[in-house]
Amino acid sequence: MAAELTAHQLIAKHRPTLDQALETIRTRAYWSPHPEHPKAYGEDGSLSLPEGKAAFDALQGTRFDLDQPGTDDWVGGEVSPYGPELGITYPHPDIDTLLPAMRAGMRAWRDAGAEARAMVSLEILARISARTHELAHAVMHTSGQAFMMAFQAGGPHAQDRGLEAIAYAYVEQARTPDTAEWHKPQGKRDPLAMTKRFTPVARGLSLLIGCNTFPTWNGYPGLFASLATGNPVLVKPHPRAVLPLALTVRIAREVLAEAGFDPNLVCLAAERPGEGIAKTLAVRPEIKIIDYTGSSSFGDWLETNARQAQVYTEKAGVNTVLVDSTDDYKGMLANLAFSLSLYSGQMCTTPQNLLIPRDGIRTDAGAKSYDEVVADLAASVDGLLGDDARANGILGALVNPDVRSRLDAAAGLGEVALPSRQITNPEFPDAVVRTPVIVKLDGAKPDAEAAYLSECFGPVSFAVAVDSAADAVELLRRTVREKGAMTVGAYTTSEEVSAAVEETCLEECAQLSLNLTGGVYVNQTAAFSDFHGSGGNPAANAALCDGAFVANRFRVVEIRKDA
Amino acid sequence: MAAELTAHQLIAKHRPTLDQALETIRTRAYWSPHPEHPKAYGEDGSLSLPEGKAAFDALQGTRFDLDQPGTDDWVGGEVSPYGPELGITYPHPDIDTLLPAMRAGMRAWRDAGAEARAMVSLEILARISARTHELAHAVMHTSGQAFMMAFQAGGPHAQDRGLEAIAYAYVEQARTPDTAEWHKPQGKRDPLAMTKRFTPVARGLSLLIGCNTFPTWNGYPGLFASLATGNPVLVKPHPRAVLPLALTVRIAREVLAEAGFDPNLVCLAAERPGEGIAKTLAVRPEIKIIDYTGSSSFGDWLETNARQAQVYTEKAGVNTVLVDSTDDYKGMLANLAFSLSLYSGQMCTTPQNLLIPRDGIRTDAGAKSYDEVVADLAASVDGLLGDDARANGILGALVNPDVRSRLDAAAGLGEVALPSRQITNPEFPDAVVRTPVIVKLDGAKPDAEAAYLSECFGPVSFAVAVDSAADAVELLRRTVREKGAMTVGAYTTSEEVSAAVEETCLEECAQLSLNLTGGVYVNQTAAFSDFHGSGGNPAANAALCDGAFVANRFRVVEIRKDA
Repeated sequence: MAAELTAHQLIAKHRPTLDQALETIRTRAYWSPHPEHPKAYGEDGSLSLPEGKAAFDALQGTRFDLDQPGTDDWVGGEVSPYGPELGITYPHPDIDTLLPAMRAGMRAWRDAGAEARAMVSLEILARISARTHELAHAVMHTSGQAFMMAFQAGGPHAQDRGLEAIAYAYVEQARTPDTAEWHKPQGKRDPLAMTKRFTPVARGLSLLIGCNTFPTWNGYPGLFASLATGNPVLVKPHPRAVLPLALTVRIAREVLAEAGFDPNLVCLAAERPGEGIAKTLAVRPEIKIIDYTGSSSFGDWLETNARQAQVYTEKAGVNTVLVDSTDDYKGMLANLAFSLSLYSGQMCTTPQNLLIPRDGIRTDAGAKSYDEVVADLAASVDGLLGDDARANGILGALVNPDVRSRLDAAAGLGEVALPSRQITNPEFPDAVVRTPVIVKLDGAKPDAEAAYLSECFGPVSFAVAVDSAADAVELLRRTVREKGAMTVGAYTTSEEVSAAVEETCLEECAQLSLNLTGGVYVNQTAAFSDFHGSGGNPAANAALCDGAFVANRFRVVEIRKDA
Repeated sequence: MAAELTAHQLIAKHRPTLDQALETIRTRAYWSPHPEHPKAYGEDGSLSLPEGKAAFDALQGTRFDLDQPGTDDWVGGEVSPYGPELGITYPHPDIDTLLPAMRAGMRAWRDAGAEARAMVSLEILARISARTHELAHAVMHTSGQAFMMAFQAGGPHAQDRGLEAIAYAYVEQARTPDTAEWHKPQGKRDPLAMTKRFTPVARGLSLLIGCNTFPTWNGYPGLFASLATGNPVLVKPHPRAVLPLALTVRIAREVLAEAGFDPNLVCLAAERPGEGIAKTLAVRPEIKIIDYTGSSSFGDWLETNARQAQVYTEKAGVNTVLVDSTDDYKGMLANLAFSLSLYSGQMCTTPQNLLIPRDGIRTDAGAKSYDEVVADLAASVDGLLGDDARANGILGALVNPDVRSRLDAAAGLGEVALPSRQITNPEFPDAVVRTPVIVKLDGAKPDAEAAYLSECFGPVSFAVAVDSAADAVELLRRTVREKGAMTVGAYTTSEEVSAAVEETCLEECAQLSLNLTGGVYVNQTAAFSDFHGSGGNPAANAALCDGAFVANRFRVVEIRKDA
């Protein structure tokens, strides 16, 4: 077919963006081509907020047709954490038809080369960016994130992570030239001379197993890393969060077709309730790469059983903040309060255990006892969430009933320093909106250990009393080693404690945020600069995004002949 | 301790070499800093051939002390494939003492940074290079390679592969800066500002499981890739080929100590006969990386069971050469004859199956029937090996009795086109020196399939009669897909056949050499330019050397704070 989008057009449009991304992953300075302000959208073909909302509304109650081969049924039962049923159905695949069809376009996609794959991937991202407001509503009404967060994390920040993956994928492929002339001197004889051609080749089909809480942010890195390295991508969304990835798949298919490639290079696999299609797909011989975000139990299952595939997992961990001392007590409390509250603590990066010496801490506001620190933090959270409108904007809604159950149960684990409060969302009265609970635990008591050494996903934090900073460092080490951690935070004015925490994080391979008291939070990472996870502790076997995340998604085949 | 070798000295000495290596893996042109001519050694502190021989002789019958912690015994029973018992004993480890001792130096090695690790690694290689002639004798008398091959493949070529791994390891670590300043604009408010520090951290202990045939060539990539990325390396040599790696370990320990690092960052684990220490070590929790060359059965076992480690394997495959047509019949025969004969076919890259149309082939010397091609190839091998001195120089000795048994059994698998001949080595009368056997098989007969679809490691080739070039391409595809291949060769003047073979190799991920008729052979790859294996078919899960071979040997830990 004649491509509507030529390689020349795409290079002219997107190569500067790729080059800036390549430069930024090298400097790790701040950069983003994706605006963070809702009002930045609405011109140049992008949807404004009302247009995005209207597009989202128009999808409800419809059949989301993707024109995929091997569709044997229409399935879907998404219910917004804010209340409404979405009423959208998606194609359910006949796997034996769909998987072979996805392979059909591989050769042309391979032959296009790394730069063309990057350019097409960037065009997909650009179209996604133009529909950020539509995706924001889709993310909001599947994850339960508040609108502003769904807009930013589900929109520009997710797109940044996708672009980062494209940049890593491109540079990894481009480090080997397409061709080489090789001349080896042979003394007085003629040199040996060979002509060599190097081709990056895909591993095979790539399976993206999406998550409920951050369908785009956690999905785009694997999707674009695989696609840009030549692998067709089958997107298996979480059954509660299909729409954001279905929209993504539709856009990808449109762009692929317009650029003259087979749209089946990106397909969706929605599932019937309780079908567990991920387990079936994960061990299919055609599937050579799997990206997964979710529970440790299924992540471990994938790592153990999907032996035919490269498996990249982000699982659960127990995130710790060590509180030793601070020269900005108020800033520390405000920063922590926001970290605990954002999206009701439903981030894989939200702190869970706050390790506080039982003898108290030194601060710029004087010595504070353990009880005072916990009470002041509770007050800070209370203050932050005191206004219901503001609270709704920060907390969003609980994503599913399990989170609510865990939250309710947490109050029984120890002395409640801050009870969870129910908040009404006037716009969505059915939304379950809850403030975080803070529970006091004694780190020295064995029965408390079971609580603070398990991940309690949701708005639950434990103020764990420890004997000393050294004790806290040891507990931090043990927690990361045994349970994993996506994030570690620490507050200390002591060089000695700071050095001990840093050394522990280096040895146990955990990403550390030190003394955050301003507008950056331990649970947030910025694409192109911060690594999300380390890939070196039990919480995740890969980091977003580094060379290792892309380098094994393709292989290089060499064809050489005498020159 | 005060370092005798300062970082400054090492950078002055070795940084230009690293820079040239970095440039060459990018251009993939020819380059090597390690001379290929025996006479190039003997000055500037390097051992001449007689000095190397004397050093090797002096080792025989001695205890090879490495001053390692946790040595509970002295073991060794190497017998040269050329006859003599080496009589050298090596330290046998008490693992529970040795492994913790190896971790002790990790922190200083990490803190030294990527460039210092590269420089120390290059100094190790430089010392190895100076003792190339000693190592050549050690490789010869453990692998059975003829001297010239032991010298080149075990010396400069192995060192090239080590340097290549160091270069990849360095660039992979250096792509992330040590520090970054991050400033994110906030409209009218002050920008968010953070200071970030990035540290490459080792995964843990790295285990190198050496092979019998190429202890240094196959060992150096993993050893140096792991060491240069911060991981201590425990070298577990093949019990028949301990000495080359023991010498390597001794040199590494000397250099590490002189540079002020813990020598226990590189240790040797020799084993008692039948102990199977690799299996014990491979599943120890301290072992986070494994490099392995050897049988598919143990390689598969490692991939399945050493789940706590990153496992890089080079296993067995069935290498194929497709013979369709040629415009240099004589050159083709000579090239193939050498490929089949070199080191008695005991290379993982030696062709095994020669796929020849039963209706014959077109050549510049006229049409040749299947029988004629096979007979001419047999004559070519006979001519190459007709002179015993020359034959000894090409063939070397059979590495172990299993190869001899397979060779003897191969004659019973079909019609023998070229019988294997025993050759006397006047210098080493006990050496088992045998010329290759070529056996005719009919590709259409199911009972022949069992023979040609199994790896028959050693000087055994099958001339497989196929129906057509298309039939050959399909058999090639099936062989690579099911059995794997380190190499594929093809001879054809047809653009159509060439395209079909190339496409098959791209799809099945096999490295292809086309129409080799000169002084480059399908079984040889050059560091910095050729990839050894693809990592994408069953013969190996990694390639030497690419980004994927190094990128997951370390992780990056980020420590960030408000600026």
